[in-house]
Amino acid sequence: MLLVASSMHDYAEQTQQFLIEGDIKAALKAARNVSALRTSQVLTRVPLENVIAFLLQSGWEKAAYVAGYLPPAFTVTLLGQMSEDDAGSLLAEMAPEKFADVLKLLPEAYASRLLDQMDPVYRQRVMQLAEYPEGTAGSVMSPNFLTVDADSHISEVIEAVRLAPAEVERTAYVFVLHPETQRLEGVVSLRELMLGDPKAKVRNVMTSDVFAIAVDEPALEAARRIRSRRLKMMPVVDEQQAMVGIISIGQSMDLLAHELADEFVAMNAASPDESFYTPPRQAVKKRLPWMAANIFLNLGAVAVISSFENTIVQVAILAAFLPMITDMGGNVGIQALSVSIRSIALGEARLIDFWKAVRKELVIGLFNGVALGALFCVVAYVLQGNVILGVVAGIALGINVLVAGVVGGTMPFLIKRMGKDPALMTGPILTTITDITGVTIYLGLATLFLSSLMVG
Amino acid sequence: MLLVASSMHDYAEQTQQFLIEGDIKAALKAARNVSALRTSQVLTRVPLENVIAFLLQSGWEKAAYVAGYLPPAFTVTLLGQMSEDDAGSLLAEMAPEKFADVLKLLPEAYASRLLDQMDPVYRQRVMQLAEYPEGTAGSVMSPNFLTVDADSHISEVIEAVRLAPAEVERTAYVFVLHPETQRLEGVVSLRELMLGDPKAKVRNVMTSDVFAIAVDEPALEAARRIRSRRLKMMPVVDEQQAMVGIISIGQSMDLLAHELADEFVAMNAASPDESFYTPPRQAVKKRLPWMAANIFLNLGAVAVISSFENTIVQVAILAAFLPMITDMGGNVGIQALSVSIRSIALGEARLIDFWKAVRKELVIGLFNGVALGALFCVVAYVLQGNVILGVVAGIALGINVLVAGVVGGTMPFLIKRMGKDPALMTGPILTTITDITGVTIYLGLATLFLSSLMVG
Repeated sequence: MLLVASSMHDYAEQTQQFLIEGDIKAALKAARNVSALRTSQVLTRVPLENVIAFLLQSGWEKAAYVAGYLPPAFTVTLLGQMSEDDAGSLLAEMAPEKFADVLKLLPEAYASRLLDQMDPVYRQRVMQLAEYPEGTAGSVMSPNFLTVDADSHISEVIEAVRLAPAEVERTAYVFVLHPETQRLEGVVSLRELMLGDPKAKVRNVMTSDVFAIAVDEPALEAARRIRSRRLKMMPVVDEQQAMVGIISIGQSMDLLAHELADEFVAMNAASPDESFYTPPRQAVKKRLPWMAANIFLNLGAVAVISSFENTIVQVAILAAFLPMITDMGGNVGIQALSVSIRSIALGEARLIDFWKAVRKELVIGLFNGVALGALFCVVAYVLQGNVILGVVAGIALGINVLVAGVVGGTMPFLIKRMGKDPALMTGPILTTITDITGVTIYLGLATLFLSSLMVG
Repeated sequence: MLLVASSMHDYAEQTQQFLIEGDIKAALKAARNVSALRTSQVLTRVPLENVIAFLLQSGWEKAAYVAGYLPPAFTVTLLGQMSEDDAGSLLAEMAPEKFADVLKLLPEAYASRLLDQMDPVYRQRVMQLAEYPEGTAGSVMSPNFLTVDADSHISEVIEAVRLAPAEVERTAYVFVLHPETQRLEGVVSLRELMLGDPKAKVRNVMTSDVFAIAVDEPALEAARRIRSRRLKMMPVVDEQQAMVGIISIGQSMDLLAHELADEFVAMNAASPDESFYTPPRQAVKKRLPWMAANIFLNLGAVAVISSFENTIVQVAILAAFLPMITDMGGNVGIQALSVSIRSIALGEARLIDFWKAVRKELVIGLFNGVALGALFCVVAYVLQGNVILGVVAGIALGINVLVAGVVGGTMPFLIKRMGKDPALMTGPILTTITDITGVTIYLGLATLFLSSLMVG
């Protein structure tokens, strides 16, 4: 049967509806047609007691597979509502790297009671994985992979593929180790095995140039290389070049997608680790400090406006256009900023392009500034019937748009050149800059033309 | 040799440097260690004549492979600088789906002269691919894939894999067609072929439930299903369920990354098809209309402030805090907005979660509003020595932060429920809303306490 997207029911929505209503049997039936990833997404949005009933009735193996896709913080909440026996049975079936992610978040005493329930080999594996620092290749790798000795015959390797347990990645490559040192020596694809002479040694058909990642390097580096080299997976090696895990292309997709989203969230001074299911209390903690800092950033604009108090006393209507000028500067700047961050994040632009970015934004800003300034000049005149006010507001807006575009478009390059995250907090910093330049130019010009303004 | 990321030279930077200096020989040598994707990124940032020299000296096959990763608009510029013979030789070696992307952008007469140089089968293929509308599965699929007849013996299928040309995807699956109707009937993995009995018919070992995508469905739908099902590729079928192409996991990674970035760019009213190498003139065209629209959006706040002209005449210092209140509202709102768009884009949150989002943002907004309002109240008092001004500004800021968080956090859900793009233009719309509520509350309260404000 061909399962074409458009002709399929939305079983995920159905599963969700049944789980909200508490009809576990129906949910289990509908979920048969839903991928583990989407099932896990459904589970995060339905009552917790129904999630537990659903998992208990799924059978441990299936339940653990789905739970492996849940955000670790959610799994912790879930385990808290289950008996320790059930929690142990669920975790025992989970991929060790997923269990390790959960383990880091559990209270120590509870974690060690759970680990005591596990088979010693599995326990050892999980504890080791949990020790790799967040973000390293070691912290995301799967320790299940297939290796053979370089002296094996191809027929033996094929037999090893046949006998490999299901949790081992066995659909793309087999890794080849040095017979004595156990160091990673090469890799052989299923295609090479299938087409090779069964009596040949694997050493003679393997590829010996292997792209690998060190266990303490960033996992993202592996994901980027998997993408740019079009690899299916990448082996993770320790200092002795012994193989300790693999990172797959599927994981790479997730790592890259999250990284990209994080960049944009960081630009808006939101915390990249806040997600939809972050409890409000934690979300407050994550968002508040940035915003409190922003109050102090904004004092610059306050000071500028205060210094022009005299001008405003005489022509109060000037205040009416203040938010317009700052808002337009902010928006134009953020527009340019987001295009730049996107180009850097997708790898289209690099540091060396800084001057190209400056030139581009200068040209764009000049055109946009003149056009928007002229438009605004007309609007202000029509609204207030004051030619000079229109001209002053239009010029200020035009210059601010130019400045905002250049600053917004080039800031990520400058920050990256300083070795920092090119997106973090750039939104609020940018609006602070454009607020100050905007009000300074606007009120400065107004003061200059004060007598004409008062005549109208 | 193990190619561990940290121990490798940055050959891409080297290649770029040599190409900037015009040392083509050295660049060719350095580029041997660089992936085609990264090489293509390097080429977009160096002088055009050196790009052409580099490609001409790479040999057509390699040059076409690298050029396949270039943005089609860049390739068009490149072709314009080459002789028609060279352009034809380059394109003739390109994957047909990549050529088709370029073809759409070429002047008609030039395109048909180039096509006339091509082998008729290849020409036919490219022209067909160029006809699928942008964004459909047909427009991104590769027409090179391996099929066998369901009656074939496994040994015959293995032989077909052996003989398949290199441009055919032959490392994961072989697709199985009905012997007469040629409809897609199933799929068989290399693992199944390798482990199966060579004399068995492929029909008996294939998987007959195949996830497929119709040629006119969105390519993104294929990418999402490839990700959530952890597939390596997905066949594309026409109305008669005949197979016409494949979409690979590598392409899916690129599609998903661009889609995600586009969402965030759209949120800032920037055009998703503007990239780093969009010429300034086009960038102006893409950005200006949104910003002009924004001027009119902003007139609401202008009208509100104008109506309070009287209050400002009497307490001009009120104007000093106007940008602060609108800026904070905008930033808090965009913070919440970006977290929501991220959750929707990564598939963590769905429409049904609307009320959950409202509740969450209400709680966060209440805390943040009180905290930031109180802080601002103190700041305003310290700066101006006016208690009432501090209280008024603090309350206005607090309420505006609450409103901004709720509106920003829930707006994408509302827009998506209306069937529109949940990100498009939300940034400027949001700041318009928060500007108006912010200044209304601020100046409204100020007018109410006018007599106390004037006393200070």
